[in-house]
Amino acid sequence: MKAEIIAVGSELLTPHHVDSNSLFITQKLNDLGIEVRLKTIVGDDEKDLVDLLQQALTRSELIVVSGGLGPTEDDLTRTAVARALRRTITKSPEILEMILKRFAGRGIAVPKINERQAELIEGAEIIANARGTAPGMWIRENSRIIVLLPGPPRELEPMFETLAVPRLQALAKGKMLAKKQFYITGMTESEVDAKAAPIYIKYPGIQTTILSNTRHIALLFSRQIDSDECPTDLEELAGKVQEILGDSVFSTNGQPLEQVVGIQMKSSGRTLAVAESCTSGMIGARLTAVPGSSEYFLGGVLCYSNDIKSRLCGVSENTLKEFGAVSVETAEELARGIRSTLGSSVGLSITGIAGPGGGSADKPVGLVYVALSDEQRTESHRRIIPGDRDSIRERAVSFALSCLRRFLR
Amino acid sequence: MKAEIIAVGSELLTPHHVDSNSLFITQKLNDLGIEVRLKTIVGDDEKDLVDLLQQALTRSELIVVSGGLGPTEDDLTRTAVARALRRTITKSPEILEMILKRFAGRGIAVPKINERQAELIEGAEIIANARGTAPGMWIRENSRIIVLLPGPPRELEPMFETLAVPRLQALAKGKMLAKKQFYITGMTESEVDAKAAPIYIKYPGIQTTILSNTRHIALLFSRQIDSDECPTDLEELAGKVQEILGDSVFSTNGQPLEQVVGIQMKSSGRTLAVAESCTSGMIGARLTAVPGSSEYFLGGVLCYSNDIKSRLCGVSENTLKEFGAVSVETAEELARGIRSTLGSSVGLSITGIAGPGGGSADKPVGLVYVALSDEQRTESHRRIIPGDRDSIRERAVSFALSCLRRFLR
Repeated sequence: MKAEIIAVGSELLTPHHVDSNSLFITQKLNDLGIEVRLKTIVGDDEKDLVDLLQQALTRSELIVVSGGLGPTEDDLTRTAVARALRRTITKSPEILEMILKRFAGRGIAVPKINERQAELIEGAEIIANARGTAPGMWIRENSRIIVLLPGPPRELEPMFETLAVPRLQALAKGKMLAKKQFYITGMTESEVDAKAAPIYIKYPGIQTTILSNTRHIALLFSRQIDSDECPTDLEELAGKVQEILGDSVFSTNGQPLEQVVGIQMKSSGRTLAVAESCTSGMIGARLTAVPGSSEYFLGGVLCYSNDIKSRLCGVSENTLKEFGAVSVETAEELARGIRSTLGSSVGLSITGIAGPGGGSADKPVGLVYVALSDEQRTESHRRIIPGDRDSIRERAVSFALSCLRRFLR
Repeated sequence: MKAEIIAVGSELLTPHHVDSNSLFITQKLNDLGIEVRLKTIVGDDEKDLVDLLQQALTRSELIVVSGGLGPTEDDLTRTAVARALRRTITKSPEILEMILKRFAGRGIAVPKINERQAELIEGAEIIANARGTAPGMWIRENSRIIVLLPGPPRELEPMFETLAVPRLQALAKGKMLAKKQFYITGMTESEVDAKAAPIYIKYPGIQTTILSNTRHIALLFSRQIDSDECPTDLEELAGKVQEILGDSVFSTNGQPLEQVVGIQMKSSGRTLAVAESCTSGMIGARLTAVPGSSEYFLGGVLCYSNDIKSRLCGVSENTLKEFGAVSVETAEELARGIRSTLGSSVGLSITGIAGPGGGSADKPVGLVYVALSDEQRTESHRRIIPGDRDSIRERAVSFALSCLRRFLR
């Protein structure tokens, strides 16, 4: 089955908005083994929408339309769909009842304008909306299906999940998508591909996707299966890929790096303190994005100035003078120092040149040192990170957490 | 003139990708007074793309196509456009020359596969690509214009800006978009609208947009003008809106809050230190996202644990015992303490409950205290911020920077 997604709303054609609903819908459709072949964003223009729906009906078996179901004149999805299908529209007592209840619950009368939302297209089934007044609709047109959903994600998502997905599942005749995912750190995208490609090209029936961002590289494998099928080829491929990537894989269940590190910290019963120079708080921010991180994260020092590096983090003035703030020596003294100042079991430090200024031939923009220290040892790592100030800093945080994860193993 | 944007690439139909190019292109077109009526994302499927181009030619005067100009079999934009326009394709010596030079510069021979990128559609003008091998094309078809651009944003953006925009400008016959923007802090979106709406509804010819995120509220006004026209109505509206919003407006030129605060700090010659509890580094991270922030930002302490609040930031154990870590008393001692520990002219502190756990009837999740201290005074601010852990923390940072901005005035 091939699907297309239409998002309706002039605000989605401004430079400020992306159509995030279509990502959610695509994910859910892909999980059912349904491919999305086309996505369109159209303004609040009835003629454009009618034309588009008629074209969509000639090529796609499933058409999911979001938006344009509100109570105002701008909201013309109902009339456009009725026109495209040459069907009538009637006021539905059932929907009116739902709307009445909703407003009664808030202790107010139904505004006249909202009665428009009780309009039902001939032959459509109602998809109830637990979080708003606009119901969705499920419409069959010969062998095609059209699903109408309201635009706000908090209304659309539960409606699609609980009411559209089960119907589509029944139509998909027990098909589903089997998936394996690997989150990888400490390698570049091309290094990952160079290692994995000789394996995955031998499984042409399995779809491979590599995604890269400042946090990690994700390697995704998927194949449509019958719901009672055991995808042994996918298991086999995943096993081989895990073997070749080894320790660089930090998650196969979608957990981010800061959560994986958090689990390591908790299970070891140790505590952590950070000294951040070039990232100035970004490591602390990311570690504490995990609820419950106060169990192992004590805190840290943002040692942006050299004076703070010496006074609070125990770096000797000699080291700063002789080797500079961005050096392996300073990084290691910072890691030992922050551990001692804050009284943690593990100390993590980072120092580097985020740019755009401050680089030299010796120490270019992007140069970063990370050091780790505990009661037994201190170790350090050097890397030159490409990109602009923002992405250097973000990648530096991921690099530091990646070093921490290995240190804790 | 009405435009539509087509993005080509199967990867853009996965749940992991948004088409960010279209936002950039929309911004540039809107600036020229050109409206975007439709956006489509299509996979690497020649028939779908040909059909789509033919439909687009019947309804839009300008069609901007991004992606599908690479060297591989998947890259079929050139052939699809040629088919849709019934034109031929030839190898262009001029493009081949460009590609040769590019590879020669890297000291390698042109791979056979890249020669495909020298294909030129009959009658097309070449749009040179300074950052990649795929050139763009500018094609006239009767009164329609089709612009082809490569998918990677770092190639597409300068090509569109320097080569497509001037040609479009010439076609737009001196039309342009006049704009006024206000970035606002310390008010909710509905408070802003309640104040501004009675003014802007009197200017029906001017388009108003209100956008809200965790960083600020943006109020945007725009109207298409002739390039030699002075939009006095827009100036008048902006003047009245500035008057009613007063001090809540922190930027009218798009500068983010951390940059505005940075300019205040620089011009005052003062220095800043932060003590962060619930945000644990996010304030430091945002302040230092501004290049050159080391001139005024000394650093800070992530005082996630109570022990660090007392040992490094001078909060008395009594205060913590009597009033708790999230209290006005702790916030003020933190601000004074961090100023003294780090030797800065201004101390900024934040303490709060980011959730999801840790809230109580007295001190609910979202409760945040910000304090500021200098040589003359200490002040504090309390707010209850709605949302989940991530958005509470992000909004808390904006709240703190907003307090700092007022403190520095």
